[in-house]
Amino acid sequence: MTEPVPLAAPELADPVALARALLACRSDMAGDIPRDGGAQAALAGWLEALGFSVTLLPFGPAGAQTPNLFARRGSGAPHLCFAGHTDVVPPGDDAWTADPFGGVVEDGVLIGRGAVDMKGAIAAFVAAVARAGALPGTVSLLITGDEEGPAQDGTVRVVAWMRVHGIVPDGCIVGEPTNPSVLGEMIKNGRRGSLNATLVASGVQGHVAYPHLADNPVHRLLDCIAELRGRVLDEGSADFAPSSLQFTSIDVGNPAGNVIPGRARARFNIRFNDHHTGASLRDWIASVAQAHGCLAEIAISGEAFRTPAGPLVGLLADAVQAETGRRPRLDTGGGTSDARFIASLCPVAEFGLVGATMHKTDEQVSLDDLERLSAIYARLLHDFLTRPAEAAR
Amino acid sequence: MTEPVPLAAPELADPVALARALLACRSDMAGDIPRDGGAQAALAGWLEALGFSVTLLPFGPAGAQTPNLFARRGSGAPHLCFAGHTDVVPPGDDAWTADPFGGVVEDGVLIGRGAVDMKGAIAAFVAAVARAGALPGTVSLLITGDEEGPAQDGTVRVVAWMRVHGIVPDGCIVGEPTNPSVLGEMIKNGRRGSLNATLVASGVQGHVAYPHLADNPVHRLLDCIAELRGRVLDEGSADFAPSSLQFTSIDVGNPAGNVIPGRARARFNIRFNDHHTGASLRDWIASVAQAHGCLAEIAISGEAFRTPAGPLVGLLADAVQAETGRRPRLDTGGGTSDARFIASLCPVAEFGLVGATMHKTDEQVSLDDLERLSAIYARLLHDFLTRPAEAAR
Ligand SMILES: [Zn+2]
Ligand SMILES: [Zn+2]
Repeated sequence: MTEPVPLAAPELADPVALARALLACRSDMAGDIPRDGGAQAALAGWLEALGFSVTLLPFGPAGAQTPNLFARRGSGAPHLCFAGHTDVVPPGDDAWTADPFGGVVEDGVLIGRGAVDMKGAIAAFVAAVARAGALPGTVSLLITGDEEGPAQDGTVRVVAWMRVHGIVPDGCIVGEPTNPSVLGEMIKNGRRGSLNATLVASGVQGHVAYPHLADNPVHRLLDCIAELRGRVLDEGSADFAPSSLQFTSIDVGNPAGNVIPGRARARFNIRFNDHHTGASLRDWIASVAQAHGCLAEIAISGEAFRTPAGPLVGLLADAVQAETGRRPRLDTGGGTSDARFIASLCPVAEFGLVGATMHKTDEQVSLDDLERLSAIYARLLHDFLTRPAEAAR
Repeated sequence: MTEPVPLAAPELADPVALARALLACRSDMAGDIPRDGGAQAALAGWLEALGFSVTLLPFGPAGAQTPNLFARRGSGAPHLCFAGHTDVVPPGDDAWTADPFGGVVEDGVLIGRGAVDMKGAIAAFVAAVARAGALPGTVSLLITGDEEGPAQDGTVRVVAWMRVHGIVPDGCIVGEPTNPSVLGEMIKNGRRGSLNATLVASGVQGHVAYPHLADNPVHRLLDCIAELRGRVLDEGSADFAPSSLQFTSIDVGNPAGNVIPGRARARFNIRFNDHHTGASLRDWIASVAQAHGCLAEIAISGEAFRTPAGPLVGLLADAVQAETGRRPRLDTGGGTSDARFIASLCPVAEFGLVGATMHKTDEQVSLDDLERLSAIYARLLHDFLTRPAEAAR
């Protein structure tokens, strides 16, 4: 494994050098405990060299703390924040053609775990700041070391800390890989919410030949499931795909074909748009479950949000178009991201690299894409921070 | 554990002595292998002493053979057969107040595993034969050592052997405990059929946030289940309760709440009356499964049957009424029994002891019931075998 190297000043404007240094830090999970591999310390050093004041914000239980940092330069409005994560998912298998933590460049492509999700985007943003020189207003970075894991001591807690300290950006860019196949395709200007539920039906065990003496919990559960599936949650909207309810498991575990079991359980997930809130869905599920004598455990992992009207998305789209020749489409599909935690603080939009190889073997980014993303971020920094005051927010 | 004792001739007319001797033979399963504990050897000895010729019919794989016997006395019509089993379910727990294989009598009650299901009934039939003395026609006993287990090398094979040897009784009494709470309540004059099915849905795994890229097998399975449950199989009939379909298990085993799984499985049982055959249900299930892209594995464990009109049930009911003062009602409910194998050979009716404690801790029978059941069987033997020829079958 390559050791992270301190970079000379000119290299702070080079996204490839920065990305290689970050990729060399092994920041996947070690069992249940996030590890950082020196990624945030390296990043903090570069940001300090660029004039930022860096606050380290480790949160969570002693011995298993999640490293986070908040870095800020300048003061007053406008304030543009960049949010991202230094942790990566584990390499997953041995089929890699290069060391996933080697920062290997071959044929114009940088290979490594985190190349697109999302050390490459962090590198591009740092390079953009280094290139932009002096800027009005405030530039900040919100970086967590746990986005891929439980994410309980990461962005959500840094956002709470920012709120307590009165730090409210005018806009935030999350550097997730939003482009399905080509740089410039897609900006995420919102995300669906997500809710997980477990239904448990308890009944009275018995012999299948005497169903009237038993109370089949499988049938009660199936009736409850049928009612839940019977509702069309919505038809979607201009901004959102229709909400989707997916049963992910049903488990009874009864090996005896002639016995009505005593208990049955089902789990499902809802991806919901802004026709709903987590609370409205939770109340609906609870009432359907109760009507069928089932218990429901419900966990809301994120609310639906859409970025409100304002300069953030427009200036970002303009910058993407100027640098790539493509007008990115706005999209709210796919999974959740840490943007859901930031949306309650300030307008948030997501734009990063091409996600095709994220979480896969031989995750990779072209050096061209790293260069163009740096240019996009630099253009956005300039346009957002120097725009006329009347257009603020 | 009491050792089986050779009985003196007068004791062959005493159902309590016979039952105690049978209860002392440990004939539950030893793991997967049926054991007999000497029960059939004891029975064979008594029957030979009563003038029967006994054929031992062990069937099944060497080392794990199921003991069976067929015993016959007399020749020609009418021919009355008694069918039963010497195996018992295991004691199950340590909460017994007496040794389950001790043949213990206390306060007029015989306690032990098999007291009512159905060593007690076998004892009552032997005692009935001993009391009846010389009789016209043929008396036979079809005794298996595996009714409670897989039952693949038991009654079904003895019946096949009888058919091959041209042995076709005019009627058969199965000594299962048919009375729910009081001797004389109920004769079984038929049984519902039983069918087990497993449905398997295979789909395409994926992330819950991208259901359009996956094919959720849980949903396909649920649609298939809904169609199966949506059909009212029948409303029952004068002789039969409505058919009943019970899902006994659904299993996906997917621990990841954000992943659409690749496979889902469900199992169900149908207890069906004579509106259906195993084949008609199998075809229906297969076509519904196919319509939903599911695979179905279907096993028919017994067809529905009802005893055809004839003297067997009438004479049995008369005998029960004469000895107990109760007119037994005819019933086809409950589980399957070995009667399903015999029904294809000859008219079959079931009558035995009170089943309230069968398969439970402290299984027990009152000595009075043993005595009265012996009297019922003796009366039936006489009435069935000496009836005018024109009433035969
Ligand atoms: Zn990411
Ligand atoms: Zn039985």
